[in-house]
Order: sequence, then C-alpha cells, then structure tokens
Amino acid sequence: MSNTFGKIFTLTTFGESHGKAVGGIIDGFPAGIEVDEKFVQQELDRRRPGQSSITTPRDESDRIEFLSGIYGGQSTGTPIAFLIWNKNQHSSDYQKMKDVFRPSHADYTYTAKYGIRDHRGGGRSSARETIARVAGGALAKLALKKLGITIHAYTSQAGNIVLEKDYTELDLSLAESNIIRCPDAATAEKMIELVKQIKTEGDTIGGVISCVIKGVPVGLGEPVFGKLHAGLASAMLSINAAKGFDYGMGFAGVSLKGSETNDAFIAENGTIRTKTNYSGGIQGGISNGEDIYFRVAFKPVPTILQEQQTVNDKGENVTLHAQGRHDPCVLPRAVPIVEAMAAMVMLDAYLMSEPRFL
Amino acid sequence: MSNTFGKIFTLTTFGESHGKAVGGIIDGFPAGIEVDEKFVQQELDRRRPGQSSITTPRDESDRIEFLSGIYGGQSTGTPIAFLIWNKNQHSSDYQKMKDVFRPSHADYTYTAKYGIRDHRGGGRSSARETIARVAGGALAKLALKKLGITIHAYTSQAGNIVLEKDYTELDLSLAESNIIRCPDAATAEKMIELVKQIKTEGDTIGGVISCVIKGVPVGLGEPVFGKLHAGLASAMLSINAAKGFDYGMGFAGVSLKGSETNDAFIAENGTIRTKTNYSGGIQGGISNGEDIYFRVAFKPVPTILQEQQTVNDKGENVTLHAQGRHDPCVLPRAVPIVEAMAAMVMLDAYLMSEPRFL
Amino acid sequence: MSNTFGKIFTLTTFGESHGKAVGGIIDGFPAGIEVDEKFVQQELDRRRPGQSSITTPRDESDRIEFLSGIYGGQSTGTPIAFLIWNKNQHSSDYQKMKDVFRPSHADYTYTAKYGIRDHRGGGRSSARETIARVAGGALAKLALKKLGITIHAYTSQAGNIVLEKDYTELDLSLAESNIIRCPDAATAEKMIELVKQIKTEGDTIGGVISCVIKGVPVGLGEPVFGKLHAGLASAMLSINAAKGFDYGMGFAGVSLKGSETNDAFIAENGTIRTKTNYSGGIQGGISNGEDIYFRVAFKPVPTILQEQQTVNDKGENVTLHAQGRHDPCVLPRAVPIVEAMAAMVMLDAYLMSEPRFL
Amino acid sequence: MSNTFGKIFTLTTFGESHGKAVGGIIDGFPAGIEVDEKFVQQELDRRRPGQSSITTPRDESDRIEFLSGIYGGQSTGTPIAFLIWNKNQHSSDYQKMKDVFRPSHADYTYTAKYGIRDHRGGGRSSARETIARVAGGALAKLALKKLGITIHAYTSQAGNIVLEKDYTELDLSLAESNIIRCPDAATAEKMIELVKQIKTEGDTIGGVISCVIKGVPVGLGEPVFGKLHAGLASAMLSINAAKGFDYGMGFAGVSLKGSETNDAFIAENGTIRTKTNYSGGIQGGISNGEDIYFRVAFKPVPTILQEQQTVNDKGENVTLHAQGRHDPCVLPRAVPIVEAMAAMVMLDAYLMSEPRFL
Repeated sequence: MSNTFGKIFTLTTFGESHGKAVGGIIDGFPAGIEVDEKFVQQELDRRRPGQSSITTPRDESDRIEFLSGIYGGQSTGTPIAFLIWNKNQHSSDYQKMKDVFRPSHADYTYTAKYGIRDHRGGGRSSARETIARVAGGALAKLALKKLGITIHAYTSQAGNIVLEKDYTELDLSLAESNIIRCPDAATAEKMIELVKQIKTEGDTIGGVISCVIKGVPVGLGEPVFGKLHAGLASAMLSINAAKGFDYGMGFAGVSLKGSETNDAFIAENGTIRTKTNYSGGIQGGISNGEDIYFRVAFKPVPTILQEQQTVNDKGENVTLHAQGRHDPCVLPRAVPIVEAMAAMVMLDAYLMSEPRFL
Repeated sequence: MSNTFGKIFTLTTFGESHGKAVGGIIDGFPAGIEVDEKFVQQELDRRRPGQSSITTPRDESDRIEFLSGIYGGQSTGTPIAFLIWNKNQHSSDYQKMKDVFRPSHADYTYTAKYGIRDHRGGGRSSARETIARVAGGALAKLALKKLGITIHAYTSQAGNIVLEKDYTELDLSLAESNIIRCPDAATAEKMIELVKQIKTEGDTIGGVISCVIKGVPVGLGEPVFGKLHAGLASAMLSINAAKGFDYGMGFAGVSLKGSETNDAFIAENGTIRTKTNYSGGIQGGISNGEDIYFRVAFKPVPTILQEQQTVNDKGENVTLHAQGRHDPCVLPRAVPIVEAMAAMVMLDAYLMSEPRFL
Repeated sequence: MSNTFGKIFTLTTFGESHGKAVGGIIDGFPAGIEVDEKFVQQELDRRRPGQSSITTPRDESDRIEFLSGIYGGQSTGTPIAFLIWNKNQHSSDYQKMKDVFRPSHADYTYTAKYGIRDHRGGGRSSARETIARVAGGALAKLALKKLGITIHAYTSQAGNIVLEKDYTELDLSLAESNIIRCPDAATAEKMIELVKQIKTEGDTIGGVISCVIKGVPVGLGEPVFGKLHAGLASAMLSINAAKGFDYGMGFAGVSLKGSETNDAFIAENGTIRTKTNYSGGIQGGISNGEDIYFRVAFKPVPTILQEQQTVNDKGENVTLHAQGRHDPCVLPRAVPIVEAMAAMVMLDAYLMSEPRFL
Repeated sequence: MSNTFGKIFTLTTFGESHGKAVGGIIDGFPAGIEVDEKFVQQELDRRRPGQSSITTPRDESDRIEFLSGIYGGQSTGTPIAFLIWNKNQHSSDYQKMKDVFRPSHADYTYTAKYGIRDHRGGGRSSARETIARVAGGALAKLALKKLGITIHAYTSQAGNIVLEKDYTELDLSLAESNIIRCPDAATAEKMIELVKQIKTEGDTIGGVISCVIKGVPVGLGEPVFGKLHAGLASAMLSINAAKGFDYGMGFAGVSLKGSETNDAFIAENGTIRTKTNYSGGIQGGISNGEDIYFRVAFKPVPTILQEQQTVNDKGENVTLHAQGRHDPCVLPRAVPIVEAMAAMVMLDAYLMSEPRFL
C-alpha cells in the first residue's frame, strides 16, 4: 500500500534498487500538455548519482523511457507510464550485508513488517525510488509552467554551515551554478569544503533544503485536513532521510508575538496583498497569492564507511563495515526531489481547487 | 473536500464556529470496543475554552452527544456519529468584522476560494472545528489502549521560554498538573508568567508542543508515500496555527554526522532494540518499536487586541481593532489536539499494518 | 468502512433504524448553490413510510435538520451536515427477534462480521439508512439543475406486471400521479392491485425501477475503472434489496447483432448525435450527450408475515413469525432512492470531468 | 483519473493498443506469496487473441515481464510492476479511420473529453487494456488459492443460444474444453456454430457470462456503499462492452414472492447454512458463506465488417467500412477477464474484512 501519491493527479511508483527497473504511472495528468522529454531527462540528470565529486561515484545514466499516454508529443489524458532500467548495480557489494540490519536504515523494519525483503542496495527503501518522483515532478512542472507557477529549491544548510540570507535576497537560479546547489557562492564553497572533508572521514552530514514557490494563484488548498501545507509536509517527509518540515516563519516564529508576525493586508491597484509574508503564502490551508516557502531537514546519510555495531537477522550482535559507493550528503541530489514533490502537490491542489461550478 | 481524515479509520467532520453544532462521523472503528463516554468528555474538557486564566474566557460546556454506532456501551463496527451543540456564541462580536479580512486569518482565502463565507467566529476556519478531532482522537485512544499504545503531549516551548530537558528526563503525566501543560513545574511557571504578561499587552505568543508515543509495535507505517512520520506531519500541520513538524533528532540533527546519529542495533534477550533513538522510533517510514517523539511549532494566535491595518471585502484599506474573547496562546488547548491527531494516525496505521495474511 | 460515497462530492452517512438519529455529512458540494430546504424535505417525503396504502403503515415524519455548511440560504463549500431524529420506533416489535437471524436479511452476516449488532429494526442494515441518501441526492439535484441535468425514475415492473412501453413513449412526470410511481396509468392500476393482493397474503413482491437522465453534457465519466455506468451500477447495487443493473439495451440486447445495435453518428447543425440510442448515452464509459437510461432489479422484501424456518444466535433451529409494520414491496419508496443515487453519481462525475486546464 | 482499481489491493494500469506496451502496478499484494509466473502467463493466454477460429486472427504472444516486487520467487509486499510489449500492431489498418468516429466505440467521447486521442487500434479504449486486468487477477487468484477461494466463469448465453442449466448441474471445469468456454458440450457446439455464421456475415453477437465464486468465508464485504455485490457490479461494468450485471436470483427473481425466494437458515453440525441460495451468497452486502454467483451481459462487438454511416472529427457525415482483424464475439476472451475482476474484488474484500482487532 501507499505507493500512490496524490488525489486527482496521481503518481504510482515501483521498483527496487537492484531490480530490473524503477518507474511509475502518472494518472490524472491534464490532456494537451506538450511533454518535453528532454526537460524530464534533465530533471533526472539533476538527481543522478555520479554528477559531481561530492555525490556517490555510481555512474547511472538513468534514461527515462515513456510507454504510454503521449501521442504526437502531447499528453492524451490517459495514464503516462515510464521506466528507467537499472544498470550498473553492484549487487555483490551487498552480499555481505544480506543478513545484517544496517543501523538507521530500513532493513530491520521492512523485514519485521513483511517477513521478506530484497536486501540488494536497500531494495524498495533505497533512495533510487525517488527517480520516479523526479519524473512525476518534471511532468507536473510542465503543467504548472502553463499556469505561471515556478518552484526553486536550494541547499540552505549543510552540517553547521548555514546560509544566513533570506530567499528574497538571493538569485535562486544560481543554485544550479555549483555542486552543492546553494545560490550563494561564498556559502556554497564552505559547504562543499565541509562535505569533502566529511567524506574523507568516511562519515556523512545532514542539512536543510529550502524551497520557494512563486506565481501561485489565490485559493489553492483545501480546508481542515487537506491544508496545502499539510500536503507539502506529508510530501516532504515522505522523502528518504527527511526529518522535519516548516513553512513561513516556522519554528523560528514561535518565540515572536502576534503583533510582530501578523501579515497586514493591503489593497494595491485592486488586488489584495500582504505587506509582509510571515504566513508563507498560505492562510487557513489555502494559498493567498504570496510566495510559498518552506524548509526540509535531512539527516546525515546513515551509510558510513566506519565500523558499526549492529544485529543480524538471526538476532546476533555483529559488527558491520559498509562498503560500496555512497553519498556523503544527500543535499545536492535532494534538491530536485524536493522540487518534484512540491510540483506534484501544487498541480494536484490546482486540479482540486479550480473553480468547478457555474 | 478534505473534511475526512484517515484511510481505514476515518473521521469526517463538520461545523462552523457559530453554526448550530460541530461534530463528525467516525467510520472504520473496530467493533467490540467499550466506548467510555466519560473519558471522551474528559478529553473534550482538556481542550475546552474557559478552563483557566490563560485561555479564552469563553465558557463553553461542549457536551458530546453520540448518535449512532454504539450499542450496549460497545462499538458495533458501524459509523459513530457525534455532535456538540454550539452555545454561548457571541456572534455580535463579529458583526463589525463581517466584511473585514482579519490579518493572518483565513477570512480572505476562504472568501477568494468560495465566494462566500460564514464570517461569524471564523466560521469553518475557527479552531472550534478541532472539537471533532479531540472526540475522534479520544475514541482512537480507547482502541490503542487495548494495544498498549499511549500518547503524551506537552508544552515544551512558550515564546522564548524553552523546556531544556529531554522527554526521557520528565514525568509526562505531570503535564496535566499545571495550566500551561508543561511537565516541568519550574519551567511551567515561567511560561505561565509570560503568557499572562503577553495577555495584558493584548498580544499573543507561539510555542512548541512535543509529543511522545510509547508501546508502538514494530511494523506500523507504510513505505514510500505512506511513511508513518509523513502521516504524523500531515496530521499535525492540519491543526490550526501549526507551522512546523520534526521528529527524532529533527532540525537539530542536521548539523551532526552520521557516525554521531546512527542508532546501533542491539540484541537483548531475543528482541532487537536500538542503543540510542535519534531516529525517533521510525526507520524507512515504519515503526521500529522504540518511542516515537516529535515536535509541532505553533504560531502566535493571529487575533490580537491591538489596532491592525487590513482590507475589507470591497478591497478598501481599513483598520481593525478586534474584540471578543480570545486565547493569548494556543498551547495548553492544543496539547489534547496534538494527542488526538497522533492517536488517529496510529490507529489508522495499526489497522493498515496488521498482518493480513496466512 | 465504506459509509462514504463519492470522490469529490462525498456523502458519509450514519445511523441505525432505532438509534437516536440518522443523517450524514456532504463534503465537496459546490459553494454558492441555493439550498432549497423545502425541496429536500419533499424528496424525503417521497421515500417516507406511511405515505400510501401500499407502503408500511409506520408513520415517520422524518424532518430534516441542517447543522452546517449553509449560510444565508446558500452552500458555503464547507461540509453540510444534516440529521433526522428517529421517532415512532417500536423497538419492542423486535424484542422477540433479538437473537434470531431473519431469513434473507443481514442479521446473520453482520453478527458474523462484527460479533455484535444492534438488532432493533435491522440496525444499520435497515433501509432507514437510505434517508441520508435521499437527502444527499436532493442536494445533488439542486446543483445538477443549474447544469440542466434532470433525473426521473419510475416503476417499470412489479412482480409479473411489466410496463411494456419504452420511456420515450411516456410522460415520466406522471410517475408521481399514483402510489406505485408508474407513469402509465393502466399499468399502474394493475401493479397496485397486485401489491394489495400480495399484502393480504402476508407476502411481498419484487420489481424493476427504470431511470432516465436527460441533459447530460458530453464527456462525463472516466475511462477504464471509473466508467460512468460502472459508477451507476455500484451506486444502484448499494441500495438495499437491489439485485441487478443494466443500462442501454442491457440484458435484452445480448441476443442482437452488432449491425442491429450500433448507434450511427449523425451530424446535425454542427452537433454530433446518434440516430438510435442502444448505447444508453454512454460510450467507453463516457457520456455522449444522449439520454442515459438504466434499470435496477429489486428482490421481494424479505420480511414476510408468514412462519419461516431459521436459526438463532446460539445456532439452534427455530421458527420465526415476523410482526411489525412492513412494506409489501419496496418499489414506490425506492424510486426516489434510485434518483438520489443517480444524482450523486452524476454530480460527482461532473465535478471530476469538468475541463480542468487552460 | 480512475486507472486504479481497488482499495487495499490496488491495480493501476496503463497502455494504448498500439503504444509501446501495456501493463500495470499492483500495490498492497500480501508479502510471502509464491508468484507462479507460469500460471500468470497461462491466464494471459486464455484472453489472448488468435487462440481459436472464433476469435480475432491477430496473433499476439503477449508475454508478461515482471519488473519489481518479487524476490526469490516470492512477493515482498512492495509494488509488483509488469508489462507486456505491444507487437504485431497493424496501425496502418487504422490510418483511414484516424478522423472517423466508429459507431458505438469510444472514439467520439474520448475526443470530446480530452481534445486529443491516440486513434490507433482504439488507443486507451481498446480491450487490449484488459491484459493488465488479467495479470492482476492472476496474482489475486494466487493469493485467494491460499484461502480456498476459487472462481469459475463461463459463457452461458451467446446471441439467442442460452445454456438453460443451473451452475450446480454443471462441471464448470469443462468450460475450458471448448473454444466458446461453455461447460455444456451440446450447447457449446450450437454457440460456436452461431458465432461462425455471424462471422461470415461480417457481423458480431453479444452474450452473457456467468461466474461462480466458491469457498468464500462469511463476513467479506462492507455495509452500505461498499457492499460486496456493489463492488462486483462496478468491476464487471468496467469491462469493455459490458451492459448489465445481476447476482443471485437477479432480474429473474423480481416476479417471485418473498415466500418463494427467502433463504431459510439451517444449523448443520454447528455451522449455519441456508437451505436455498436465491441470495447468491451475499446478504446485506456481506458474504454468508454460500456460493456467490452472478451474470454479466455483453453487447455485440461494435466493430462490424459492414458499411456504416457515421461522422468524422470535422463533423461531416461519412461512411465507414471497417477493416482489420476483429472478434465476432467477446465471450470466450471475456471469460478470463470476468474471473480476473472477480478475483481482485474478492482479495480486496478479504484484505478489508479480515478481523483487525484483538
């Protein structure tokens, strides 16, 4: 269960890390949208392993292949299936770990839940599953583009290196100009330095990804249990290694007073705006037309190249020394995943929120 | 849309602040559970306005009335409907604000989305809607009790007063011993002092509620999009005024290294445990048997008794001086709401996760 | 589970026959629709017991009370809750049958499934549950009216008395002119005669209700699993005592040839129509703009006032001689229920099918 | 939307007739079931074109390829993706029909709904889509087998040739012994004769498929809107060309009296059974342990090799003379599809109905 995301726009995904393929089926995608396959591939390339010196050296080409739902380059309203064949899997790297529960991974919980698991490369719990999310998100972005909605994520903290600037002071397009995907060059440099050093220790580091959604019309999101930010929170926390989410003033705002954080409305040339945007573009669960911005916390990658104490599937205490090709830090590759999930939430909210009646 | 919560255990709610009643229908509740109506009422009393000097002076008795699904004191497996009649509503307090969009409230977004809204007391966007959540959560707690699962929330930060102790150092049952619901007496006193002072300023303050779930069996939660913590995040962010969520080491853990935060497995008398619990009781979206703990950030209540600049529904700039009876801080009344949402998430996860096959 | 109907427009119902009340919550109803409560009550009156000499003499007034979602007479887009208090219940009629499984009723299966049941008046499995459907359908009709969609059901067979005329030869509004709700006066008279005779025998009879939906725009219904007629079939079969459904040429058409039943398209003044309508207004699961028509088979009411062999909850063979006030035939009261379910299917299909994109 | 079937066990399908592939993703399949791929292929072979002289001569090998969710021959609880590459498509057969709306096909409604369609071979509305259903159903059968639930469908009417025997008088396994899949040899012969003759006329014929489900435990199905037979009805009507459904005594029973059709309960050696089974194994929407049996009406295949009047996408009246390789009758190939849909309904009902609590 639960391999389907969304209500009207839905993405159902499949695939294990070292199985034959990963992929998915998108249903509810509007008809008549030009499907720019090159753009979709570019998005996949942004999350691809082996793209830089601070990501895993696994060199996966990850070419997407569409199987249905597109005719003459356009979406037809029928399900869009796609897959990415798995190649370059080194299952033998995992042979020794077949019976061992890696600390802070999902090996133990999957085994306990299902009684069986494909241990190779983490199986279904591998972050390789996120390829399908990026593909789904790329399609969603193509539809959102027609609505003028854009989404930009970037690394705002790596370990203890924090980007202190507000997103309004940054040129977010610069996130793509460096390998850590931080739009501030000086901070990016420090972050990259840190990750490189951590890598030499065989260790890993966490961080924070920030995301900004612009061009959102007023009225997206549903009241009560379907609040727009509740959807974003669920989407973000469903990403591997995510540990937290806040939006607008978030955790930082709890120590402020109402008089300091209320967003005064102002009427400007017939449109209603807010003077400030502590709310983060959402009020009562519904978009108010201002920028939506939020943060996602990621824990350090649990695979470290150091000896660790653990347990095997016979319940014996053992030691583990992981090998293989791993990321010292998820951040740069998580940036397009955060964007993809945000894009799917927004498109689904749009399809649900569009005025439906006379 | 979206007034239904859950997949197998579902709660569908209704009601406006100053309408006839608020209430809901619980579907998918297991048959044969003794429905302790007194306990349900106690839970409602915990969120009730007027319970102390730091909550709104509105004195709402909020008596629950069950309409179906219970026979001879037991649940029958059929839908359990309940309602709470609205009384003591002072709709006239809102008459002046009929056409005015209160800053950082949902007045504007509801109007923009639906073209119409019941302005009295915030209508559907009022936190009065959470009564139904608390009732649903109380039922869920009765079922969870049979499974040995318990849930305790408490105020861990009010404004800039932070409870520095870890939950493991606290007796969580003491949360009910003071009006701010903080289990540390000294900190509670400071928090109460702060809220009282803020109240005299006609201002409001935010804070953080922490929650601990104990006795969770291994295996609850679904992979990929249905991760247990994604469900908790969505549930928590759907609460009025919530701005953030993290679990386990959360935002604080991003600056640590994998070697510092991995939870080593240890085999103890045939059961598998972790030495530490940075993961927060969930790995790969599935419970691992350790305590689940998380935090929820709440913004300051947006209704302040000070003059504010805003806009009316004709798009004119106006000033607003709110009146009425309001909370200076949501925290004490949000504690039972956080617990209720957590209880419903856990019961639904249990009903989904229970081994289903031979 | 499963007490919610629909995807975007949803109705969640509750209530046992002899409990405190029956009712429901409508979610996803479009905002800004005038809620004509008098019309809703009229629809309830059409299904009301005691309305004629051929329905049960139970005299239930069944006044609907709305609790939320309506402001100034208009829907607000928030959930519309309603209830009907139970009155005039003779629970003592059922005291003797407390432990007995009535043949062809749901007593045994509910007990087996849940281990507990409210036996009074059939509890949740009573057709009293359909009150909430009629209320939901009445609301749906109010919205459909704005779209020009109308729905007319009528009794087309009672026992072996068959109305041989096609709906196109009938004035469907005449269905309301007699107590069996058959629009052909001569046939109606024979049907009524039959039902009266059956009633004197303490027996019951089945029948068929036909339904016609006019004014449907092209394009409602979803491909593959969400076909419009699949939705209608599920909705109709969910009504108590329903045993079959067909649409268009249905079962009668299986012995014809493709050349006899294909509906030739013709272009008429710029619009595309079909010359015949064997398809019943739906092709590939999607409405084609022609009339939708279908039939629903209802079994004889299982409560007969004759001695029957059966089993009690101790597994002992016993005899049962039912008493109480019962319908000899569901048909007249099922007509508004069929219409109500059809209305909800159509409104939900409209809300799903409306063009959603630029 | 609507390309997903089921609630806990779900099948999401994709694919156009002349696209790259058809296939699907199964989610919620229990872990630890041996996936007998040979059996799955055999089921696909039963619906395969070109299998006999009375089916279309298209020779499609339709080899299934599994992509995920299976490890060491067993299901792992993760999504099972599969595909069947499209081969031997003669898209050129459809070139002339590119702009023409074939009568009683979905060409017009898809175009009207989406503004675009893949015309080749009927695109998404082609019955080729049902391959994925048969694959999903085959998996479901493997799980049901462990529960002792078996499903047998057969042709009970072809055109005006009706199999007059009740299923209890037949050896249902004989359905596979002839090419029309009717378990009565003499009737089968007449049916085959009829289909052959119809074929020479370039015409087509409809019919009825009956289905029997044995070994069902008491308690499957959900009350009110989730009745087991409502689920079966929706599943069956979602099959291409289906026009009707009834179960138990169905349409035939409406002219009988309650005293004739009530199923008396009898206690036999501690288990409760019914003496007769007019109810068709379901009471109040919940299985009672008796055989479930139902019928599905199929219209004649709309593609006939005769000249027909129709309209093109410019709204012009044209004549059409279809070519290509087509079935004169869907019945033999629909038998495994009916079984597959029934299997998925039953497994999903089982997963929903299993006692979930202490």
